Amino acid sequence: MQRHFDVDLEALRSTLLEMGGIAEDMIGHAVKVLTERDESFADQVQEMEKRVNALHIEIDDRCLKLIALHQPAAGDLRLIAAAIKINSDLERIGDQAVNIAETATYLCHLPRIKLGDIPRMVELAAGMTKDSLDAFSRRDVELAREVIGRDDEEDQLKSETFNELLALMQSDASTIQRAMDIILIARNLERIADHATNIAEDVIFMVLGKDIRHGAERRESPEAAQQ
Amino acid sequence: MQRHFDVDLEALRSTLLEMGGIAEDMIGHAVKVLTERDESFADQVQEMEKRVNALHIEIDDRCLKLIALHQPAAGDLRLIAAAIKINSDLERIGDQAVNIAETATYLCHLPRIKLGDIPRMVELAAGMTKDSLDAFSRRDVELAREVIGRDDEEDQLKSETFNELLALMQSDASTIQRAMDIILIARNLERIADHATNIAEDVIFMVLGKDIRHGAERRESPEAAQQ
Repeated sequence: MQRHFDVDLEALRSTLLEMGGIAEDMIGHAVKVLTERDESFADQVQEMEKRVNALHIEIDDRCLKLIALHQPAAGDLRLIAAAIKINSDLERIGDQAVNIAETATYLCHLPRIKLGDIPRMVELAAGMTKDSLDAFSRRDVELAREVIGRDDEEDQLKSETFNELLALMQSDASTIQRAMDIILIARNLERIADHATNIAEDVIFMVLGKDIRHGAERRESPEAAQQ
Repeated sequence: MQRHFDVDLEALRSTLLEMGGIAEDMIGHAVKVLTERDESFADQVQEMEKRVNALHIEIDDRCLKLIALHQPAAGDLRLIAAAIKINSDLERIGDQAVNIAETATYLCHLPRIKLGDIPRMVELAAGMTKDSLDAFSRRDVELAREVIGRDDEEDQLKSETFNELLALMQSDASTIQRAMDIILIARNLERIADHATNIAEDVIFMVLGKDIRHGAERRESPEAAQQ
């Protein structure tokens, strides 16, 4: 029974990583619509979303069956609970990629415009997503903490892009609609980074059994922190 | 043992509803910063967020303990799984309200500007949040379906607000920054409606054991739908 359970848990983990890989590809493809001005990438993003949505339902279903059949405790239960949450974050990363692809498709038909810090934001958000999944796969708390630490840079880049594009709109009214779209894409990327941060927090909870969300770790007593 | 479990489940349900009530109040207060131009409501939103964040951690912790201690199956397990997801959606609704309050605080110091369909969007998003929680509380599948049906109207209103404000920016460059902020608030409200929709989908899954996300219900065979 336990061996069967371990096989099922391993299958759950690898399905989640498969879904994560598709979500990462969706970010990459969505951004290519913008940078290479090639709409065919948007069609691929749509196709990938179907697979992500199917996995979203499948993974939740498997998690509940694993709990009902095996009554897991401690670390195994934390793995399944983390899988439920990571599943939801990956599905939302996919949604954000779809939004980016849609906005970028629209922009393909208009003259080029400044992208602000978008290229760096993409690199950062995609890297955070990849590394949060690697941290999940390897149960790597240090990498998870490092991912969380990168979220501030993404927020900073979003603010800079926002300000840069706002200034452009104000100096040249013909750019308003396009600049607005770039700002919305910056928000989508910021949200992807937020979801990657959530995943990293779930990894830490899964491995250590410690909930560090909402600065809970910083509020811990020194005694608790040493445990 | 079962009676104790039932008491714990009931306590979980009422804590989740308490959190939902605070999240609803956060939406109302955040919007008052905008409509009444009174920053003190933003301070209250910040205070409420602390409570929501504490409940977010507490509810997840309780859910895992309930699973580990009582090994629930079927409907009880679906209730706990729904609680884990609704908890996450409520926390994110709170985040969106904080974003609205912050943007609105900034707008308080600037001349008034058109709000597009924002008042109707607020009414709709807050109503969807309230009704999704009522559906959870009463296990009311019909109400949950009705909430899901309202999401299209919110998306439509967001697009109209977006276009109206874009036209304003283009006709009067002095409005660009403020109009941009209203557009971002419209996006926050759209996201709140999305979270309420997620909650309603979780209620249907909790009650019927049927996952209707991603149009899965519409894809069902006629045989399956009759079950």
